[in-house]
Amino acid sequence: MYSCEVEVRYADLDAYGHVNHATFLTYLETVRTKLFINEFKELLKKNIFLIIVRVECDYKHPIHLGDKVIIDIKTDEIKRTSFTLSYTIHNGNGITYAEAKTTLVSFDNRKKKSY
Amino acid sequence: MYSCEVEVRYADLDAYGHVNHATFLTYLETVRTKLFINEFKELLKKNIFLIIVRVECDYKHPIHLGDKVIIDIKTDEIKRTSFTLSYTIHNGNGITYAEAKTTLVSFDNRKKKSY
Amino acid sequence: MYSCEVEVRYADLDAYGHVNHATFLTYLETVRTKLFINEFKELLKKNIFLIIVRVECDYKHPIHLGDKVIIDIKTDEIKRTSFTLSYTIHNGNGITYAEAKTTLVSFDNRKKKSY
Amino acid sequence: MYSCEVEVRYADLDAYGHVNHATFLTYLETVRTKLFINEFKELLKKNIFLIIVRVECDYKHPIHLGDKVIIDIKTDEIKRTSFTLSYTIHNGNGITYAEAKTTLVSFDNRKKKSY
Repeated sequence: MYSCEVEVRYADLDAYGHVNHATFLTYLETVRTKLFINEFKELLKKNIFLIIVRVECDYKHPIHLGDKVIIDIKTDEIKRTSFTLSYTIHNGNGITYAEAKTTLVSFDNRKKKSY
Repeated sequence: MYSCEVEVRYADLDAYGHVNHATFLTYLETVRTKLFINEFKELLKKNIFLIIVRVECDYKHPIHLGDKVIIDIKTDEIKRTSFTLSYTIHNGNGITYAEAKTTLVSFDNRKKKSY
Repeated sequence: MYSCEVEVRYADLDAYGHVNHATFLTYLETVRTKLFINEFKELLKKNIFLIIVRVECDYKHPIHLGDKVIIDIKTDEIKRTSFTLSYTIHNGNGITYAEAKTTLVSFDNRKKKSY
Repeated sequence: MYSCEVEVRYADLDAYGHVNHATFLTYLETVRTKLFINEFKELLKKNIFLIIVRVECDYKHPIHLGDKVIIDIKTDEIKRTSFTLSYTIHNGNGITYAEAKTTLVSFDNRKKKSY
């Protein structure tokens, strides 16, 4: 398991004063990118993209400005051309903001097909 | 069924040159807000918020700048305090960009509980 | 002068319930992109980027969800490698939300210098 | 002078692979909010908003994913109802990404006038 903190920005809030629900996916992406940055760069050289094919997210608790936000990632399933990651977004102190899963495929952008 | 067009902005694109996956949820929200704006304002007066509790989205095809983007919404399930909507994001001409579902609950922000 | 409407999204609002000030620049970019899309594609083929080197924006009136937002663009100044555009963001009915200017340069991404 | 680091997110990049120019303002806001969070909360209790009335930004160098981004803020000018801050966005190692200024006013949201 990999664990990483994300910083809440004022601009992440919407008119309810909570972090907008779409921004939760941005938080997952931020941490995922940090985790895969080297693999990501290697793949990009070969013109291979990592593409999201499925997201699911259960929202449990709103995030406010000033809240501590930690994301735990673990590998859920690895197939030949795709892999699924599962995430817990929490405050490190008993509050779970959300649980999520993303499935990614590697895609060869020259051959225009799964890698 | 309710159907509505969304405009792609240059800022919606990420480094791959595609609309970022989190922005698909923003597109759904944009259309949902337009659909519920009157109900939304009535609820807000009573301090009742509509809160997303679950999202799932299957990405089928990337969206580029200049693409036509239409969202069809239909009601999937209505329970006492929650309802589920399902969406198809498409170009009106045979290409489906994504299929999604969102579950929303109405929340009484004064009583701090489901409405 | 070129004039174009932009659609306000719920996600553009911040915790004050107004369109976030940074999003005003996104509105300008959205309209600018629409205006230059063909030139933009031609330049991109030659690996020439249009890059913002300066922005200034005077905010006059907040934008709310449901407000009509129209942007007027006119050319302010054209130099050999740069040009300045000026914008009025308004509702078409007496309210000016903002006045802005942007200076762009064309940049040759292969030679890594101004074009 | 106050100095603070901001984290670049993958979603901050646009189709050029650089941090989008509007996001520079979000970086300034992120740091400003952190700096004024306590004053901000006190003002909010009195229903006083801090509102941006002017932004100017000179872009010097693109920001990429993985770049270190530090923002220095200093007070430029303080008037009775407004104040101007100036910012340098840099990498702490000789590269200046941008120089900016923002003017804010305090606004009494009950009386609907400057505070």
